[in-house]
Amino acid sequence: MTNPGSVGALGEFGLVAAVVGRFPSTPDVLLGPGDDAAVVAAPDSRVAASMDLLVEGRHFRRDWSSAVDIGRKAAAQNLADIVAMGARPTALLVGLAIPADLPAAWATDLADGLAQECALVGATVVGGDVVGSDLVVIAVTALGDLEGRDPVTRAGARPGDVVAVAGRLGWAAAGLMVLGRGFRSPRAVVDAHRVPHPPYAAGRAASLAGATSMIDVSDGLVADARHIAQASGVVVALESVRLLPDQPIIDAAAAFNMDPLAWVLTGGDDHALLATFPAEVTLPEGFTIVGQILSGEPEVLVDGSRHEGSGGHDHFGH
Amino acid sequence: MTNPGSVGALGEFGLVAAVVGRFPSTPDVLLGPGDDAAVVAAPDSRVAASMDLLVEGRHFRRDWSSAVDIGRKAAAQNLADIVAMGARPTALLVGLAIPADLPAAWATDLADGLAQECALVGATVVGGDVVGSDLVVIAVTALGDLEGRDPVTRAGARPGDVVAVAGRLGWAAAGLMVLGRGFRSPRAVVDAHRVPHPPYAAGRAASLAGATSMIDVSDGLVADARHIAQASGVVVALESVRLLPDQPIIDAAAAFNMDPLAWVLTGGDDHALLATFPAEVTLPEGFTIVGQILSGEPEVLVDGSRHEGSGGHDHFGH
Repeated sequence: MTNPGSVGALGEFGLVAAVVGRFPSTPDVLLGPGDDAAVVAAPDSRVAASMDLLVEGRHFRRDWSSAVDIGRKAAAQNLADIVAMGARPTALLVGLAIPADLPAAWATDLADGLAQECALVGATVVGGDVVGSDLVVIAVTALGDLEGRDPVTRAGARPGDVVAVAGRLGWAAAGLMVLGRGFRSPRAVVDAHRVPHPPYAAGRAASLAGATSMIDVSDGLVADARHIAQASGVVVALESVRLLPDQPIIDAAAAFNMDPLAWVLTGGDDHALLATFPAEVTLPEGFTIVGQILSGEPEVLVDGSRHEGSGGHDHFGH
Repeated sequence: MTNPGSVGALGEFGLVAAVVGRFPSTPDVLLGPGDDAAVVAAPDSRVAASMDLLVEGRHFRRDWSSAVDIGRKAAAQNLADIVAMGARPTALLVGLAIPADLPAAWATDLADGLAQECALVGATVVGGDVVGSDLVVIAVTALGDLEGRDPVTRAGARPGDVVAVAGRLGWAAAGLMVLGRGFRSPRAVVDAHRVPHPPYAAGRAASLAGATSMIDVSDGLVADARHIAQASGVVVALESVRLLPDQPIIDAAAAFNMDPLAWVLTGGDDHALLATFPAEVTLPEGFTIVGQILSGEPEVLVDGSRHEGSGGHDHFGH
């Protein structure tokens, strides 16, 4: 009764063997997949750790994205969380809940995508779990090495700091709208929805340059700026003149008669880095100033007016 | 349209706040929940890491187990993986995919269960993720400290070693059958299905005593012994006279006209520890000898005959 070529036909152990072979070892992998636990290097006696879940139909659609793309995205959003602490990603653990009738090639393509994205930062997959489920759910834990530096949290922004961003804003949100309306172009934003391009190198550079706070923009610029405002007890004042939409956003906005700035302010999932720096710091490559930190009750201002953003992305809201 | 008292009514951020408050800090928590990543101590510059998924309807049923029980079980099976490496569990990350109409109290009870089980070993929850889903899926990553010792893998068993077990065998499987047939007793085995009792202290003790291999019995004694046989390239020879079923298993077997030994050999989910030791070692407290390691093509013998066990628990098989 099992479809040939399905994960059910391959079986759990066959699937695990096929998937694990796609993950290279690295110097950080002291014991790789295949035992009760992996062992990963933590050179400075600390490990940064983060977990995200991706649920089919909510965070990805198999008819909109290839398995390779979904694997890359699942890895990217977790690697970005580690990078946003100023740490170097070392390893992922990946839990995969999948239906027995899923093509085995989908699962191995997903593994290829995870491996490809990890390779961009020198990380790899060291372990995980595969279980049956009626729904595809991907759980990813990322581990990272702080290289002896303090973690760059959300709580260190101080009045007088500049606010800066590295990476794309609004591309993925534009791409999601394009796909949601049944289109497949403009291609640049659709591709950005499928596979984010976090500015990996910028996280470490920000930490080395003395960033006082940093966050991965996953909920939207205003929503994530609010996390910094609240954790640091400051006002984040953004200036729209410094938030010029990139050309692909302008193109997509023109097609839908949208204000491109709305995507820039509220679109998540590009995994840009939002950071604050003392005003005297020379910004690391890739960062551009988008505002400043003021004292006052924690809030986010855009051109001096309080902005609610999207209110943050409530995962139960849809 | 949102049910009062549901996670949807509470919202993602309200739920996270309610859940996070249930997790105490520990000396291993250098940065707790609330940032892009947590930071956990890794005193010997290595971290042991493992991940398991639990899917509603496959690994637990909300009508069979309380949320506290499910939280304890989710923690226990991951803590056991770390303990099976001879490591000390330090922290969990927990991803929770849940429907918006789930009662918020279910989610906070789950958190209480996670916290209670972690407290048994001095660990805590340091991070995670909450997302919407039509199905409850719980992803748990456990981290651990090897305390300067080598990890005890599955690959070190040598001919002449004794094979020993700490913890329960077959209880959870018996309990699952009782529940599956619509009963709620014998209570001891039903409770064992709901909340396993891994012999946490035995893992470290085995490592200190010089265990040559170790595995957490999650698939069943024979199936997990086969993992050691294959990884170590040896024969695991078990002796049924040393595998006397505990009284609750005997009672349950009598009620269903079953052979209690079948549960002992093939029942998983009690998270006993199966380990091998050089013959001259004084076994640590909690371990009893159940067989020996022989040379030969990797296989598992029970009283000299090859035993297929349950063939391992294939997660796509049901």
